[in-house]
Amino acid sequence: MVDRYFSPEPIQRALARELYAQVKDSPLICPHGHVDPRLFATPDYRFGTPVDLLIIPDHYIFRMLYSQRIPLENLGVPRRDGGWVETDHRKIWQTVCDHWYLFRGTPTGIWLRDELRGVFGIELPINSANAPALYDAIVDRLANPEFQPRRLFERFNIEVLATTDAATDTLEYHRAIRQSGWGGRVIPTFRPDAVVNLDTDGWHEHIEQLSRVSGVTISDYRTYITALEQRRTVFREMGAKATDHAALTAFTESLNDREADTIFQRALKGETTVEDARRFTGHMLIEMARMSSEDGLVMQLHIGSYRDHNPHIFARFGRDKGADIPIRGEFTRNLKPLLDRFGDHDRLTMVLFTLDETTYSRELAPLAGVYPTLRLGPPWWFFDSLNGMNRFFDTVMETAGLYNTAGFNDDTRAYPSIPARHDLWRRASANWLAGLVVRDIITEADASEMIVDLAYRLAKQTYNLEP
Amino acid sequence: MVDRYFSPEPIQRALARELYAQVKDSPLICPHGHVDPRLFATPDYRFGTPVDLLIIPDHYIFRMLYSQRIPLENLGVPRRDGGWVETDHRKIWQTVCDHWYLFRGTPTGIWLRDELRGVFGIELPINSANAPALYDAIVDRLANPEFQPRRLFERFNIEVLATTDAATDTLEYHRAIRQSGWGGRVIPTFRPDAVVNLDTDGWHEHIEQLSRVSGVTISDYRTYITALEQRRTVFREMGAKATDHAALTAFTESLNDREADTIFQRALKGETTVEDARRFTGHMLIEMARMSSEDGLVMQLHIGSYRDHNPHIFARFGRDKGADIPIRGEFTRNLKPLLDRFGDHDRLTMVLFTLDETTYSRELAPLAGVYPTLRLGPPWWFFDSLNGMNRFFDTVMETAGLYNTAGFNDDTRAYPSIPARHDLWRRASANWLAGLVVRDIITEADASEMIVDLAYRLAKQTYNLEP
Amino acid sequence: MVDRYFSPEPIQRALARELYAQVKDSPLICPHGHVDPRLFATPDYRFGTPVDLLIIPDHYIFRMLYSQRIPLENLGVPRRDGGWVETDHRKIWQTVCDHWYLFRGTPTGIWLRDELRGVFGIELPINSANAPALYDAIVDRLANPEFQPRRLFERFNIEVLATTDAATDTLEYHRAIRQSGWGGRVIPTFRPDAVVNLDTDGWHEHIEQLSRVSGVTISDYRTYITALEQRRTVFREMGAKATDHAALTAFTESLNDREADTIFQRALKGETTVEDARRFTGHMLIEMARMSSEDGLVMQLHIGSYRDHNPHIFARFGRDKGADIPIRGEFTRNLKPLLDRFGDHDRLTMVLFTLDETTYSRELAPLAGVYPTLRLGPPWWFFDSLNGMNRFFDTVMETAGLYNTAGFNDDTRAYPSIPARHDLWRRASANWLAGLVVRDIITEADASEMIVDLAYRLAKQTYNLEP
Repeated sequence: MVDRYFSPEPIQRALARELYAQVKDSPLICPHGHVDPRLFATPDYRFGTPVDLLIIPDHYIFRMLYSQRIPLENLGVPRRDGGWVETDHRKIWQTVCDHWYLFRGTPTGIWLRDELRGVFGIELPINSANAPALYDAIVDRLANPEFQPRRLFERFNIEVLATTDAATDTLEYHRAIRQSGWGGRVIPTFRPDAVVNLDTDGWHEHIEQLSRVSGVTISDYRTYITALEQRRTVFREMGAKATDHAALTAFTESLNDREADTIFQRALKGETTVEDARRFTGHMLIEMARMSSEDGLVMQLHIGSYRDHNPHIFARFGRDKGADIPIRGEFTRNLKPLLDRFGDHDRLTMVLFTLDETTYSRELAPLAGVYPTLRLGPPWWFFDSLNGMNRFFDTVMETAGLYNTAGFNDDTRAYPSIPARHDLWRRASANWLAGLVVRDIITEADASEMIVDLAYRLAKQTYNLEP
Repeated sequence: MVDRYFSPEPIQRALARELYAQVKDSPLICPHGHVDPRLFATPDYRFGTPVDLLIIPDHYIFRMLYSQRIPLENLGVPRRDGGWVETDHRKIWQTVCDHWYLFRGTPTGIWLRDELRGVFGIELPINSANAPALYDAIVDRLANPEFQPRRLFERFNIEVLATTDAATDTLEYHRAIRQSGWGGRVIPTFRPDAVVNLDTDGWHEHIEQLSRVSGVTISDYRTYITALEQRRTVFREMGAKATDHAALTAFTESLNDREADTIFQRALKGETTVEDARRFTGHMLIEMARMSSEDGLVMQLHIGSYRDHNPHIFARFGRDKGADIPIRGEFTRNLKPLLDRFGDHDRLTMVLFTLDETTYSRELAPLAGVYPTLRLGPPWWFFDSLNGMNRFFDTVMETAGLYNTAGFNDDTRAYPSIPARHDLWRRASANWLAGLVVRDIITEADASEMIVDLAYRLAKQTYNLEP
Repeated sequence: MVDRYFSPEPIQRALARELYAQVKDSPLICPHGHVDPRLFATPDYRFGTPVDLLIIPDHYIFRMLYSQRIPLENLGVPRRDGGWVETDHRKIWQTVCDHWYLFRGTPTGIWLRDELRGVFGIELPINSANAPALYDAIVDRLANPEFQPRRLFERFNIEVLATTDAATDTLEYHRAIRQSGWGGRVIPTFRPDAVVNLDTDGWHEHIEQLSRVSGVTISDYRTYITALEQRRTVFREMGAKATDHAALTAFTESLNDREADTIFQRALKGETTVEDARRFTGHMLIEMARMSSEDGLVMQLHIGSYRDHNPHIFARFGRDKGADIPIRGEFTRNLKPLLDRFGDHDRLTMVLFTLDETTYSRELAPLAGVYPTLRLGPPWWFFDSLNGMNRFFDTVMETAGLYNTAGFNDDTRAYPSIPARHDLWRRASANWLAGLVVRDIITEADASEMIVDLAYRLAKQTYNLEP
């Protein structure tokens, strides 16, 4: 277990163990993720049941069970229509444990196992027979004040944790955290997708809310931009270091103000076309790069997720229910209009994430290897796994170089899984470096520097997280 | 040799050996392949010469020789125009052995070697000098009644073997097998491509034949559907558990009956357009899913082969002569219309096969990881190889999970190569699992379950092959 | 160090070492590259400073430094406008050494290190502190007549070196080499891109130059073809064995002479459209295949580089400055028109290179595994690296077979890096073969043949380089 995830070859393994030992206990830098800031707003936040904590919010888990014909209702996933779902959490837990074999060899399976061991100190294997005992053990731990989020934050040794917050968010919980006097560093991230992507469900309401929260009456493209800039300022005042943008493709296109306003006016009237939405998002990515080049917020781009692919799940349970599916990616041509304007900019940093691994060696590594603004984010979503990391190292590093990458982020809503996720990255990194040393590609001295870069420094530096 | 295909690292190798030992002698489940049912219709079927058996029907072998400028005529591949081809099979065999070095490191090379050893008990290396001795040895074996197909079926320990049969097939050989009283389980598979893909050579004749064999006069879309349903019933009565569909792309689209009939009528009149063919196939895939959801036949989809790419080979030698070339694949968008209607269906099982490996981690594994109807088939065609399997394990399993895959099928017309192909899969599986155990990703107990799933249970269960 | 780049597993490593020993000192076959023939035209050519030799011409190096915000001016890269660039080469060298950590784990880093050791005998690590000493040591070596290009040619044991030369090149340096009586074999390669791709900067001037150098007044498509044929004859007389063609995509299309002339006339008038350029290139690839099928020059196709992606770098520094980015590739459909006509031709050999690795297993290996004219070139550009080679072996060889590949070429303008590049290939090849032997896929006897094929014979045979 001490050698988890390392190559079995003894020399490489020994070296990986040494490198890992250097960073095993380094503070965690969490520059991108989806933990709810509410957890930290008051000192006495409690997580609810084991199912509330570990199952209902985790689409990695319930999508897999659904794929094997277990209804989401039986797992307690709330229905949009308020219809029946299982509320007996012991029963749900039993169902999950009965089918735990489905997760053999998956990162989801690994994270939960490592989390139970590492965070909760529970060594029992997850299976049908152990289900009740596991449930009781977790309940027991959660009753202990040591398992309150702030205490875990300290135990996890988190140096900084960034949440992801809508452009329209009032940041009240972030404000509460700051005002509470607690020392944990929790910062927001500016995510304007809902007001930028014209085809978002409820775009009008989001725009109205943006007006309200910014104090800028949005009547046209100009005031819309002003409102966004106002919000970015507020986010920065609350400690934000980055923005985040999701788009189906990396398509970018510069519109002039008149074109942008024409599309925006159509949207206000509810007359958006598919082409409008595509062009407006493409334009706004460039506009966001412009703002970042001015205010210094690091710009994150998550490309390639076809959201809510399964209409039955969406109709019944809503968004983010494990039914987002990647599509093919293209960056060389799509990003060119943005890069033509901002690719060489002094102050801009853009971190790119992909769901199409073929773009790593073909497009992203070559792009990051020449454009000063670009950094490649770590393997995202389905690829945040041992194989995903290995392929990332093998397809990115030779061409982009380690120093055009952005270190790790856990990108999770599952707060207690954070240490397990960083641990996997650190072990995978150590093993990769050990593989380079035993092949005489780098020296041990190089590896000692690089493991700290991978585990700690690159994330901190990319996101300007010096205190 | 006992450790063939395993990692050289001793601990992993030892573990792989143990896991493999558990399934080495398990019965073979062969749910998809192209063995001719005639082989089993009479007890005394004989294979002909070594070249009849091993060379002339094997496009893997002669395409490679052709690529090195050996004319197919010299290999005895029959010409469409009946023109000269070599008929001296000893001479052909010598030519093959003279060029056997071309197959170094290829699965084709491996299968033939393993087949000679395992099935025929011939240890002589394949090369120029040994050619005559090899030929004689094979002739000798084939003269022995032990090498009749039914005897081999028993020796191979085949539990069930599915053939692939046109929708218009009378299934007379299957009927003969059943009536013969022989205990071997050989079942048909319903493959309607020739009547579904409007641009198939001779589509009209196939439709006429479909009318004849089904007893339904096909005059429009409605009667066409009725005839297909009739055939499915007959196939099911003859033991069929599955259908099989090949398409250039995974494009699907629901047409209403009127649209479908309009296209169908144009086809009857010989006025099919390229777009007609594309849309009709896309529609029929959904229609076939509908039928499968009703009659329970597992639906197999083989996507991405550009058939008969080389016009010279096609003109001279016809179809299936090793000149089919893969194209880029797309599933996320293409399959959506089908999945919107049947992706969550209670009774439907769809098994997907791809020739574009990039779709595994990007699209297929995420899709199979959420849609209850989907299973991923094993690596197909060019990817039915050690590297293909390793990449399949590494790109599919973390996201889809083992239990959304369909086990192995040999997909071969080369009957005596069946054990060698299953053996490669079983060894590759054992080695993959051993790699997970030594990295502490799964336990040995997990691996012991998973190896049986991979080698036997998943195929049996996916295709409903319980007796 | 003796086991550099080999697997750490002892049995595989020992075997790799043995195989490598067989070819370590074999002569270098260099059938494709960009070394300047001027180096060999006179016996006393000198390289200039270490920075002239190693930094300023090497876009692999300065693109990476630029990506980390070091201006190309500071690295001495000449500006198109003649504006200031750093001329203190010691200072440039120091800057490079200060940032050498950026190259950790990259092939660029490896090559320079291996080159300093192997060619210059300098063991000092590259870092800030050692910069002055390194500079002095290189200066010292370069002053020694042993480091003149011809002497290095002999020391490197180069059997033949092909340069790459514009169709309009007078080949005067090649002529000088031949007339000098020196025994080194340096041959030209016919590269007509600048007169074939209508959208090339300065196409008109290139056409005028082609008229001049060929003595054929180019007024229409017919005379244009005649001029090209004339040049090919001259190149062949000067020893050329191959042509080379770069195209953004592999699109091919046969135009009739009238269509081709119409487009050509528009180009002469400066009225070329984007579509014209695309179709004309697509047509000329087929036309070049036609010429090769007649004159026997091996046709090389380099597909997929989006040239000069960064407009700021292009505007300031011009072409070939490390800002070319790959795009997605497609061969199955794009090459079909060419292959329909020449894919089975007796005399034609086409060597394909890709920047989209996904095309290897999906399209290129299947194509090369059936078309007699096709060979696959080694990993190109960003993929000329240990990982690139490993992926090439794993995705190409099972399907194409080793003997449909073209061996290695170094494709470099960095003359002193040639031995390091071949050494990497030879080591990677040995390690790959050792991996096959330890898995009982090939025999040691096979491996002993194959290593010589990989290191020496395949390149020599593919390019018809027998003396």
